[in-house]
Amino acid sequence: MVKPREECGVFAVVARDPSVDVAQVIFRGLMTLQHRGQEAAGLSIVDSSKRIHTYKDHGLVFQALKPEILQKLWGHVGIGQVRYGTAGSGDIRNAQPFHYETTQAPPFSIVYNGNITNYKILKEELSKKGKIFLTNGDTEVIANIIASNTLVTKDWVENLEFTAKILDGAFSLVILTNEGDIYAYRSGNKPLCYGTVKSLNTELYIIASESSAITSLGGKLIRDVKPGEIIHVHQDHFFHQEKLLEVENHHCIFEYVYFARGDSIIDGKNIHKTREALGKNLAKYDKEHGFKYNNAIVVPVPDSGRSAALGYAKESGLPYDEGLMKNRYVFRSFIAPSQAERMNLVRMKLNPVPAIVEGKEIILIDDSIVRGTTMTRIVKLLRWAGAVKVHVRSSCPPIRFPCHYGVDFPSKEELIFCRKEFEASSTDEANELVRKEIDADSLVYLSMEGMIDAVNLPKEDLCTVCWSGNYWFDHQSTQKYLKNGRI
Amino acid sequence: MVKPREECGVFAVVARDPSVDVAQVIFRGLMTLQHRGQEAAGLSIVDSSKRIHTYKDHGLVFQALKPEILQKLWGHVGIGQVRYGTAGSGDIRNAQPFHYETTQAPPFSIVYNGNITNYKILKEELSKKGKIFLTNGDTEVIANIIASNTLVTKDWVENLEFTAKILDGAFSLVILTNEGDIYAYRSGNKPLCYGTVKSLNTELYIIASESSAITSLGGKLIRDVKPGEIIHVHQDHFFHQEKLLEVENHHCIFEYVYFARGDSIIDGKNIHKTREALGKNLAKYDKEHGFKYNNAIVVPVPDSGRSAALGYAKESGLPYDEGLMKNRYVFRSFIAPSQAERMNLVRMKLNPVPAIVEGKEIILIDDSIVRGTTMTRIVKLLRWAGAVKVHVRSSCPPIRFPCHYGVDFPSKEELIFCRKEFEASSTDEANELVRKEIDADSLVYLSMEGMIDAVNLPKEDLCTVCWSGNYWFDHQSTQKYLKNGRI
Amino acid sequence: MVKPREECGVFAVVARDPSVDVAQVIFRGLMTLQHRGQEAAGLSIVDSSKRIHTYKDHGLVFQALKPEILQKLWGHVGIGQVRYGTAGSGDIRNAQPFHYETTQAPPFSIVYNGNITNYKILKEELSKKGKIFLTNGDTEVIANIIASNTLVTKDWVENLEFTAKILDGAFSLVILTNEGDIYAYRSGNKPLCYGTVKSLNTELYIIASESSAITSLGGKLIRDVKPGEIIHVHQDHFFHQEKLLEVENHHCIFEYVYFARGDSIIDGKNIHKTREALGKNLAKYDKEHGFKYNNAIVVPVPDSGRSAALGYAKESGLPYDEGLMKNRYVFRSFIAPSQAERMNLVRMKLNPVPAIVEGKEIILIDDSIVRGTTMTRIVKLLRWAGAVKVHVRSSCPPIRFPCHYGVDFPSKEELIFCRKEFEASSTDEANELVRKEIDADSLVYLSMEGMIDAVNLPKEDLCTVCWSGNYWFDHQSTQKYLKNGRI
Amino acid sequence: MVKPREECGVFAVVARDPSVDVAQVIFRGLMTLQHRGQEAAGLSIVDSSKRIHTYKDHGLVFQALKPEILQKLWGHVGIGQVRYGTAGSGDIRNAQPFHYETTQAPPFSIVYNGNITNYKILKEELSKKGKIFLTNGDTEVIANIIASNTLVTKDWVENLEFTAKILDGAFSLVILTNEGDIYAYRSGNKPLCYGTVKSLNTELYIIASESSAITSLGGKLIRDVKPGEIIHVHQDHFFHQEKLLEVENHHCIFEYVYFARGDSIIDGKNIHKTREALGKNLAKYDKEHGFKYNNAIVVPVPDSGRSAALGYAKESGLPYDEGLMKNRYVFRSFIAPSQAERMNLVRMKLNPVPAIVEGKEIILIDDSIVRGTTMTRIVKLLRWAGAVKVHVRSSCPPIRFPCHYGVDFPSKEELIFCRKEFEASSTDEANELVRKEIDADSLVYLSMEGMIDAVNLPKEDLCTVCWSGNYWFDHQSTQKYLKNGRI
Repeated sequence: MVKPREECGVFAVVARDPSVDVAQVIFRGLMTLQHRGQEAAGLSIVDSSKRIHTYKDHGLVFQALKPEILQKLWGHVGIGQVRYGTAGSGDIRNAQPFHYETTQAPPFSIVYNGNITNYKILKEELSKKGKIFLTNGDTEVIANIIASNTLVTKDWVENLEFTAKILDGAFSLVILTNEGDIYAYRSGNKPLCYGTVKSLNTELYIIASESSAITSLGGKLIRDVKPGEIIHVHQDHFFHQEKLLEVENHHCIFEYVYFARGDSIIDGKNIHKTREALGKNLAKYDKEHGFKYNNAIVVPVPDSGRSAALGYAKESGLPYDEGLMKNRYVFRSFIAPSQAERMNLVRMKLNPVPAIVEGKEIILIDDSIVRGTTMTRIVKLLRWAGAVKVHVRSSCPPIRFPCHYGVDFPSKEELIFCRKEFEASSTDEANELVRKEIDADSLVYLSMEGMIDAVNLPKEDLCTVCWSGNYWFDHQSTQKYLKNGRI
Repeated sequence: MVKPREECGVFAVVARDPSVDVAQVIFRGLMTLQHRGQEAAGLSIVDSSKRIHTYKDHGLVFQALKPEILQKLWGHVGIGQVRYGTAGSGDIRNAQPFHYETTQAPPFSIVYNGNITNYKILKEELSKKGKIFLTNGDTEVIANIIASNTLVTKDWVENLEFTAKILDGAFSLVILTNEGDIYAYRSGNKPLCYGTVKSLNTELYIIASESSAITSLGGKLIRDVKPGEIIHVHQDHFFHQEKLLEVENHHCIFEYVYFARGDSIIDGKNIHKTREALGKNLAKYDKEHGFKYNNAIVVPVPDSGRSAALGYAKESGLPYDEGLMKNRYVFRSFIAPSQAERMNLVRMKLNPVPAIVEGKEIILIDDSIVRGTTMTRIVKLLRWAGAVKVHVRSSCPPIRFPCHYGVDFPSKEELIFCRKEFEASSTDEANELVRKEIDADSLVYLSMEGMIDAVNLPKEDLCTVCWSGNYWFDHQSTQKYLKNGRI
Repeated sequence: MVKPREECGVFAVVARDPSVDVAQVIFRGLMTLQHRGQEAAGLSIVDSSKRIHTYKDHGLVFQALKPEILQKLWGHVGIGQVRYGTAGSGDIRNAQPFHYETTQAPPFSIVYNGNITNYKILKEELSKKGKIFLTNGDTEVIANIIASNTLVTKDWVENLEFTAKILDGAFSLVILTNEGDIYAYRSGNKPLCYGTVKSLNTELYIIASESSAITSLGGKLIRDVKPGEIIHVHQDHFFHQEKLLEVENHHCIFEYVYFARGDSIIDGKNIHKTREALGKNLAKYDKEHGFKYNNAIVVPVPDSGRSAALGYAKESGLPYDEGLMKNRYVFRSFIAPSQAERMNLVRMKLNPVPAIVEGKEIILIDDSIVRGTTMTRIVKLLRWAGAVKVHVRSSCPPIRFPCHYGVDFPSKEELIFCRKEFEASSTDEANELVRKEIDADSLVYLSMEGMIDAVNLPKEDLCTVCWSGNYWFDHQSTQKYLKNGRI
Repeated sequence: MVKPREECGVFAVVARDPSVDVAQVIFRGLMTLQHRGQEAAGLSIVDSSKRIHTYKDHGLVFQALKPEILQKLWGHVGIGQVRYGTAGSGDIRNAQPFHYETTQAPPFSIVYNGNITNYKILKEELSKKGKIFLTNGDTEVIANIIASNTLVTKDWVENLEFTAKILDGAFSLVILTNEGDIYAYRSGNKPLCYGTVKSLNTELYIIASESSAITSLGGKLIRDVKPGEIIHVHQDHFFHQEKLLEVENHHCIFEYVYFARGDSIIDGKNIHKTREALGKNLAKYDKEHGFKYNNAIVVPVPDSGRSAALGYAKESGLPYDEGLMKNRYVFRSFIAPSQAERMNLVRMKLNPVPAIVEGKEIILIDDSIVRGTTMTRIVKLLRWAGAVKVHVRSSCPPIRFPCHYGVDFPSKEELIFCRKEFEASSTDEANELVRKEIDADSLVYLSMEGMIDAVNLPKEDLCTVCWSGNYWFDHQSTQKYLKNGRI
């Protein structure tokens, strides 16, 4: 794992014209969300006879959802998901959507991204009632709670309200019913938005993890689903706000720093512009702290560092150049298990361009520094290519705490800053130890304030856990609702 | 569907030596049971770290369980299944084994064959408790009941006893626990037996749907699992009768007539010998009723009619000859959906040999006549090949009733005898109408008495439903146990 | 290798109606020829725009030629082949048809079975002219000679005549041109025949290695292609004898003994009837030599020994019974490389039926005894099942010489009779040593005379090389034609 | 086809230590050359027993050369190729390497990229000598000529010299012999270079189409293979110049403009720097011609326009920004056949970022404008995103002539500039008509002089055919050598 990983992207579409088939639309939507999960992809479509057809497979979207599969899936309403799976759970059983049936409620299919922090407690409770599970994942837990709630209410909105109150964590979920209804809920932290596309001679109503999945189809973003909001979409009845639960906002800053596509807008903020601002704030810091460079160029670690590097270059007035060449055909699936092999692969993925780098001081902009191994390798490559000095800049503060909300960071023992902090007597000393390990001439992490300033959302609405350790969940709702007997 | 179809074959193995891997043994066992299901195959093996690994796929055993898969499955205890799926349910989700987890009990895996007659009631009850299902099949229902019972008892035998009492129907099931224990239960009707094999420098304990799966591994049959019996096998503790529930015997005669392999012994009776006796009884009937033939030969519809034809030839003294050549490479999967195409395929599968048939009266022995389409085609082929007369003999009575116990017959409207009975005023007249439709010179079905005499088991212990319509299940136990709240 | 293996079967079809597609017909034809080669299958079809489309793959016909492939192959004329490949050459490059292009002649595709005995000389000559080869096989050599001949003549018949005169060996070949013409040549030894089928609302003209490929399509055999005959088929012009080269007849007796299907007619003789006669001659010998049996039954090694066993039973008056149960799902591809593993697999393929065998003397009829390992195992299995005595009868004489004409026998060192002959001072002693090794109570091989009598063709027209060592080819024609400069 | 396409990339490696396996090295080399061909990949490796093993398949490198394949390929010398196939020839038979055998010379395998302009004449000549071909491609022609030459000389260098003199065209070829020797020849026009890598505890000698395939392995470029040069590499004898044929230089400028990776150095020039110079020259032109912009940003069409856009921004002093977001998961294989579908796919691949574009004048830099359809679509997308004006700049002149040297451009009828030139009375008017069709506010193509200046190689050493129509080959050598009888 070279970078922290987000768990999954979700997508839903309803065509106003029921004779339109949406399998291709879901395929294209998932293609745009591919960066959010590359290990499996799947979709569910409901046909005119109210049967839900689900297909999912391993691999990139174009590998998992082959044309011959899509051709066989008819229907004007559907959902899809791209998945990133943690080690050891690459099992196809964990791929989404999950389709369920019961005699108490009509069939439904569910996609979800994020993390349920109380899912083990919930699984225990469900098991005590005799429920059994095919997988170790949390999607089955959510689906079982939804199913339990169908015993109490036939109303999907009420069901989702009950469900949302039981589930602790950070997630977005979308349900497809066999009646062709879509229900979406966003707990917050994870993004979710909706919009429309005029295409295929009709109007398509889209819900997606990122707005780029709407705009890349030629459509326009209407707005984000609000944290706590339950949205209902149907061919005759779209984007109806059914409920707005009272929840706290904790938007994940890492979406702005690394996960989301540059052309997406999340909670009103364009990702590219935000990253540019992160880079500008880095440059301001450097200026304020009197860093001097001689014959320097600003070089991004492509592709994710590009926007911040452009911002740094603009703010500093220093020239921007692409001193590292990225091989766009190197996918995550190549990444070998052991450290040794990973080292060798960095260069296959990122090759320095001596013609640019030689004789220069390099201000190297990356989104973040996680384990430090890749950065160490990149600095070495740049020196090999003739760089006189390498100044490393991270557009976010040091990552120091595990995320419980669905982002897969390495353990504290593997996080370079944590390792050094353990040896050091101060943060500054830790910073210096990291600099030495990656062999940079200088190292600056953007400060928390600089980062929040760039994101430009109220500080209290942001989740900073991985940098600050300020976890924001207390699990009391679980206990409360369990007491009320709702499982 | 040219022939009635049995639903599945099951297999289990425990190696006394825990260092022995049994994936190959399961593969071979399933190869021998291949005739019981050709649409999917799967296995579960428990490894030394108590993890159950399950693999299943579409196709014949050699297609579904490829060497590279088997090589990755280690462990000395395992179960497997071959599956025949009814139309529309050819979904891999229905393939077995089913593997389940819950926090209330250790993981287990289950294989099963047969039919649960009250599974819809049970599914309804389970759904009322909020349970949800991935499939329409009955295996999930059984597994959920077992899981519910884990809340009441940690004892697998007690669990199976409770489970068995709730399930109406005809089935054999085998459970593999992550502790390396095998528990088997036979309700009756469906066969199940056990034996041992000395192989791989250890002793293997086998449970299988048919004894040929034991003997073809070089082993020996010990005995049938008794109807109502719960058997426990473990490397230190094998074939332990844990319980013998009181159940009625209703052995499926169709196993003797058609399903089972000729080298199997079921409930003490060798299949080949029983079929030979069926043929002998047909010959006795013909003799008693004064049938006269001129230049006649006894010809089986291969492979299933061969034993009965040999019996007929022995009893009648008429020469036996193989006038129909079977192509052993034509599998069920070739069989095209529409009637028209099926007609053409009969000849690809069965080609007459004029050198044998020409100028002869043919006494054609088949195990049964179901829809009559294949038989009509065969009679035509024999005439084309020069047969002077074709006398059709069925080694069982006319099939007239659907099976609720797991055999997939066509609907009454498709059964040739039912169709004719509807038009006819007597059974004799129906017989004559069938004879005309298949264009035979004479047609004799073996009588119920003749069949039961050949099987040579107490009449009251046999299930004759498909011929007699005497269904033997009243579902009262379901109600009783539901009242007791055991789901 | 348990049995000697034939190299390949060929098939060709021309539909009189050019709007008919023949891919399915070729599929079905190859299905019927599947026993002649199970390692690869392929076909070439010429479409209305005179393009030849070729597809070939590994595996059984139903695995290699999947419906989705066949659907894409249009055209009313085509050829196909099933292939058995020798060890190490299982490469798809060796699969047929071979399709070739040159600017000197229109494209053509070729299928072939048999063996070119002078192919190394020819390859050398072709190489000297600068020709290069993708494979080690002889098909490329044939195709190159045909291509060389296109420089001398544009006439396909003349070309084939030249080609046939250069090629020593035993083979049948069929050429498809992009004009929709089929040209077939049979050198003799290998079978080839033709016939017609009324199907798909038109008439189909078929050429095939065996007549069963015609009759199983509902058609009728017209006659064998004569040794030395060049046949031309076209939608307007069918089965035209273009040439009859003068060649000696050397029909392969092993076709009658083992290779061909029982329902085929080769050179006027039905295979089943011939095998029955082989069995009768074995019984006559036993009677003449005063063999006495007590409580004996005649048991075939299925499927290939069945006809001879029926013949033995008829002639001897002893009862016939199927004491060995064959698993029809065990394919050649399962057969493991080492001797040890092969031993174990015999039982998976052939399981004895104690209910039949127990307490009996068994007269076991097999078509041939090659290495003796399988026979040793079968005798052991029968004794295990309770046989009192096992008398082994082979319906052909001991195999003692390698075949140079396309049959793949083991080396002399592996042939059981050769091994024993080396130790023995007489043929009788060798026979006795074989009997001891396979642990039979008696062992009789049918004599050469008995075999030829059963085949009932003039002795001088038969190839007996593998039993007699009388090779019948002197390679002089190669030298002659090479002198004439025809390559 | 959105962009002109290069035919293929080649790679070869020799490990000094013969115990090292190079399959992984070839895989990584081909990964770096992936941009040169995405439709098939293959490799040949020679093992210690002098057997050449070849594997090739459809798809991207990671799809075609799966780990389980690479694991089975041992040996310390090998070659590989990535292939782009023209429409209709996507047949696996055309994938490289091509492996050949003959009795006159040891086996060899060959990879090649480029185009043989006289290959039809050569094929005709070869056909006249009776040679036949499996494919329509030119690789077989080359291989046959090499094979013919083995009759004249056993020396590979002499052979290659003869071969090179017969072949007209632009190509690089690499031969692997079963002795573990590598021979490479570069005719010129197509790039080819060599270098070394210290890796796997030995030294690797690499020959590759681009230097990035060497440097991304951590190695260093030694130099380009010179046009006309025959290089020999062997574990004991590396990069030996065997011969330097006298040939004219005609370096393909399109390598600098579009094909090659930015981090490659071809004929001494870094690609990125050259592209930057192309952008600078565009900016100079604009300045000289008095273009005025208001609130303008320089935006590349990623990824290929990025370097030129950076150059433009530097020279003009205008800000650079990434206003188009590229989806790196959209591969060529998605591209649908019809124009209509292609239109829709542009946006899936390139999505505008309104936050950057809105209210701005856009100076849009692309490497070239071919058919104009994609550019029309991009201009529209930028306007949709709020661009006030869109000024289109092409970093090369209008493409007006087909390439006969291996680049696959659309036909003249499809080239936008040719279409407009046909309607227009002057080049300026054609330029204006193109501008109107793509709906740009201004349109400038870099001039021939500006382009050549940026490439900075002697004009007479460059091939400008696609812009100028100055074809540089007269086919006389073919005639000459044919007269000498060398085929």
